[in-house]
Amino acid sequence: MSEKNYTLKEAMLYSQRIAQLAKALWKAVEKDWQLWIKPYDLNINEHHILWISYHLKGASISDVAKFGVMHVSTAFNFSKKLEERGLLTFSKRDDDKRNTYVELTPQGESLLLDMIANYHDTPHSVIEGSLPIKELYGRFPDFMEVMAVIRNIYGEDFMEIFEHSFKNIDQRFDQVEEKLNLQKMPLE
Amino acid sequence: MSEKNYTLKEAMLYSQRIAQLAKALWKAVEKDWQLWIKPYDLNINEHHILWISYHLKGASISDVAKFGVMHVSTAFNFSKKLEERGLLTFSKRDDDKRNTYVELTPQGESLLLDMIANYHDTPHSVIEGSLPIKELYGRFPDFMEVMAVIRNIYGEDFMEIFEHSFKNIDQRFDQVEEKLNLQKMPLE
Repeated sequence: MSEKNYTLKEAMLYSQRIAQLAKALWKAVEKDWQLWIKPYDLNINEHHILWISYHLKGASISDVAKFGVMHVSTAFNFSKKLEERGLLTFSKRDDDKRNTYVELTPQGESLLLDMIANYHDTPHSVIEGSLPIKELYGRFPDFMEVMAVIRNIYGEDFMEIFEHSFKNIDQRFDQVEEKLNLQKMPLE
Repeated sequence: MSEKNYTLKEAMLYSQRIAQLAKALWKAVEKDWQLWIKPYDLNINEHHILWISYHLKGASISDVAKFGVMHVSTAFNFSKKLEERGLLTFSKRDDDKRNTYVELTPQGESLLLDMIANYHDTPHSVIEGSLPIKELYGRFPDFMEVMAVIRNIYGEDFMEIFEHSFKNIDQRFDQVEEKLNLQKMPLE
């Protein structure tokens, strides 16, 4: 065993902390997510692929796999199913013949918009559980420590897609709101 | 739809952040965990049950399920398998006839100690990915924001077991080290 910058006890305490927190948080996210997508006959991987394609405005299968934290074969197989349902299209790019790209069809986009419009029809325990922090600090938590750990594990590429998807929501949400005509919601 | 203290755009941005971070973090934890337990012919649920029983020094099946974030039936069924392998025993308590308790057998404890001794035989990407934070702040991150969210979702009981398990590692690790005779490791 090589010299470590931490003791075995520190490793055990920290492993225990991060494993418990990551499992509990993911299980809560997963449950909310499943309830949200249930009426649309999608599983989490399928919805995640649609969501990534939407926010990256056309993504390669390998980007979908990387950012969706799924195997490339999983990303490909579920994308195929979404294509068969008319929600996605596959394409090649002239400047990149090796990768397969996926893009939402108008039908796929309208499904996602519908899901956004119905977001509040199901409970979101993670949002509810974060509201006391929002009340205290004026905004939802940003989990900088988790981001730093994930940056170190998954690399800069992952974080770039991560930031890109936020920018996209941020910039395009006015359009989304127009399309949804959600006058009843207290939107900014 | 009822009035919310946040806009739909805020909800989308925050959902996206927490879902991506939780999924990526959990998948990394899960991968490390699987590599660690692979030589012992255990799945994550089984190891989690052993680990919880060890740290709570005898836990009810419902505590195992709650803290392990698994269904009671999952906790029960895997505990049964561990009992058949001689790693756990089931018992009832005189002061609590309704719950079933599980406790590690000496064989179960020695398996866990063996796993702790071999902790560094497999890569732990989450620990490696957290070392820059430890170098910067002098300790591993404690993820207070995640803890606050989890406290709100899972309640005070969950956090009590969480804290209890740390206290146990903290207090009993000297014994563990003695048992392991890990003189080569840079232990405190």
